[in-house]
Amino acid sequence: MPAIGLQCRKCGRQHDLGPFYVCAECLGPLEAVYADAGGNPETLRARIAGGPRTLWRYADLLPVAYDPAVDLGAGLTPLVPARNLGQALGLRHLYLKNDSCNPTWSFKDRVVEVGMAAARQFGFKVVACASTGNLANAVAAHGARASMPTCVFLPRGLERGKLLLSAVYGATIVEVEGTYDQVNRLCVEISEEHPWAFVNVNVRPYYSEGGKTLGYEVAEQLGWRLPDHVVVPMASGSLLLKIAKAFGELQRFGLVEDHAVRVHGAQAAGCAPIVTAFQEGTDVIRPVQPRTIAHSLAIGTPADGRDALEVIRSTGGRAEGVTDAEIVESMRLLAASEGIFTETAGGVTIGALRRLAASGRIDEDATVVAYITGMGLKTQEAVEETLPETVQIPSSLRAFEAHVLPRLDRFPAGTGNAARPVGAEPARGGG
Amino acid sequence: MPAIGLQCRKCGRQHDLGPFYVCAECLGPLEAVYADAGGNPETLRARIAGGPRTLWRYADLLPVAYDPAVDLGAGLTPLVPARNLGQALGLRHLYLKNDSCNPTWSFKDRVVEVGMAAARQFGFKVVACASTGNLANAVAAHGARASMPTCVFLPRGLERGKLLLSAVYGATIVEVEGTYDQVNRLCVEISEEHPWAFVNVNVRPYYSEGGKTLGYEVAEQLGWRLPDHVVVPMASGSLLLKIAKAFGELQRFGLVEDHAVRVHGAQAAGCAPIVTAFQEGTDVIRPVQPRTIAHSLAIGTPADGRDALEVIRSTGGRAEGVTDAEIVESMRLLAASEGIFTETAGGVTIGALRRLAASGRIDEDATVVAYITGMGLKTQEAVEETLPETVQIPSSLRAFEAHVLPRLDRFPAGTGNAARPVGAEPARGGG
Repeated sequence: MPAIGLQCRKCGRQHDLGPFYVCAECLGPLEAVYADAGGNPETLRARIAGGPRTLWRYADLLPVAYDPAVDLGAGLTPLVPARNLGQALGLRHLYLKNDSCNPTWSFKDRVVEVGMAAARQFGFKVVACASTGNLANAVAAHGARASMPTCVFLPRGLERGKLLLSAVYGATIVEVEGTYDQVNRLCVEISEEHPWAFVNVNVRPYYSEGGKTLGYEVAEQLGWRLPDHVVVPMASGSLLLKIAKAFGELQRFGLVEDHAVRVHGAQAAGCAPIVTAFQEGTDVIRPVQPRTIAHSLAIGTPADGRDALEVIRSTGGRAEGVTDAEIVESMRLLAASEGIFTETAGGVTIGALRRLAASGRIDEDATVVAYITGMGLKTQEAVEETLPETVQIPSSLRAFEAHVLPRLDRFPAGTGNAARPVGAEPARGGG
Repeated sequence: MPAIGLQCRKCGRQHDLGPFYVCAECLGPLEAVYADAGGNPETLRARIAGGPRTLWRYADLLPVAYDPAVDLGAGLTPLVPARNLGQALGLRHLYLKNDSCNPTWSFKDRVVEVGMAAARQFGFKVVACASTGNLANAVAAHGARASMPTCVFLPRGLERGKLLLSAVYGATIVEVEGTYDQVNRLCVEISEEHPWAFVNVNVRPYYSEGGKTLGYEVAEQLGWRLPDHVVVPMASGSLLLKIAKAFGELQRFGLVEDHAVRVHGAQAAGCAPIVTAFQEGTDVIRPVQPRTIAHSLAIGTPADGRDALEVIRSTGGRAEGVTDAEIVESMRLLAASEGIFTETAGGVTIGALRRLAASGRIDEDATVVAYITGMGLKTQEAVEETLPETVQIPSSLRAFEAHVLPRLDRFPAGTGNAARPVGAEPARGGG
């Protein structure tokens, strides 16, 4: 069921499908529109269940047809019940959607697969983007896969490692003097003059629909039901919007029972224009100069901020701002309690979740899903200095017993540890 | 169908299940033994298809029961058809099994989930390992998840980033003076004196069985059939052994039709004891001092080398050694052609595949699977210096047209690029 048209989110005017992203009438943002799924929900569910083990199992709900050339296997990442973290926060049914298990290790692979399928359908020959890092990686990798030249634009001064990850896939990397918002404005200008597909500018109505799959998957993985609360990181605000849209569609098409989901948004306190507007009770998103370690969320003029705010308010959610110190603490808490090492954006999400839980705004029996959208190695400098030193020893049992054993052997002898291993002579183990 | 016992791979003697890993009789390595699956293959296939979307869908074929405490969602990673790379190598049906999409981004999550389930079943209270990096990461993460203290032993001098990835999960990190092989010997000694579960030493017969899931998944993802060739990286040789075992079981249980699979092994030339033995036509694996950038494969005395060699020879496969220069070149080729950024070990695999394809030993119509076992960010220094510089510009259209456009706009105007985007006034895109 590819989209049947585009519609302005502001004035409602309909437009034909094409590489358009702003309303010719009012300059509002365009959004993909679908025919009603129509058919039997059971049939649609069965078609999804029988589909590929990627986000393309939801092709019936996406704006473009499946295109194998851009398929790197993104999507259907683990939804993990988080007992330890849940216990720490007083939540009995907490789940983590771990999108760091994607091909370039962030949720951007989802939006790029959908956006690039659209770009190819429209006949573009070069794919580009404005990015804070993760999106560039995803565009570069998928461009390699689809044999299309890619060009990624980033604010100057990002970690060299993040740039190199795009370079290894063969992208042309352009560092632009200025903030992300200036980079983005430059990309808008370029897209008006040159026939390039900027996935998050002129292909945005298609690209952003890929974010819906993070809503569909959670519902399917919960056994075709909706959670009571979700916590979503916000940069442009688009992801939050699309997850909420997905929940709405699932109910409209009869794939899940009607159920109210409170949608909470998380930003870094150092770049929190949506949170500020929420707190001030206004609709006006005032631009800010980002000052946070959460670079991937550092968008001072969020394109979909107003709509995200509307979703948060209308579902009874909240917008929470998280300090850099809380981000680091939350990254470490998540890794140590659940074995998931996330990037700073994930620290923002967990930090917001902690605030929500501490304030008593989430019932302990509620089903809660927090979205972990990227992996920790890309921003490891955020936690590096806070970690304990290693223990260094020579290769001897004595040294182990003197310097290592006391740190770990806190368990009383003979209690429960019945299975004393009976090794014979030394033998090689090997990795 | 948990294992019914352990059997010595050398003398065949049966042992009871328990935390044992060497034969009391001959000191040979122990291996898990199963009852015949017995039932109808259709029933078993349906049970697998209806199971979780993780390696635990194959619980019927693993030695321990499913344990939710150690489940981080490992397994069922993408099997990607590699058209571009296949074309470059003259292979029409090349697939890449991308195990960098695991929770700690390497295949070690598989063996650790199975090994740690066994460790918990046997009542151990501390989980440990000897590691070259990836295994430590997986043990640390799963220990956090299972609320068990972990202690990881590594040769001194590994990249600090690799160590920190284990530290963030809360593991105690011990750097030992010496090579991996010395670290491993120390772990054997410790396991004899202290009741710790070393996943790759005293829990090895269970742990290593997790590697079989890389065989099962490929067969299932190919529509329940076996490939003609597989290329597997070798450190201890265990993974290759277990993938071959999985193919054998699938045929024995009637899950796939009988089919000969040529199993090829890949090592870095700087640490190639199995390759050397293969080339010399001997059964004797002579220990070597590793000298290669492929640290995760740098095991000079491979525990399962002899058995791996036997599998390679008996299936008509080959063992290939790959130079450091080929490793880097292959990492870049894979990233630029297929959008998959792998660590040095993956460069070894692709390097071996290139050699096999170039020598004409693989028919162009054969179905070939290469195993990509880990991700590139963990060893990014290997490619860093070979990558092109970024382009730096001020935020202006003129600068873009002068310095960036000429690099990419190689397509004649007006040919095919019909979809010239019709932007209205500038609007915010946003990430």
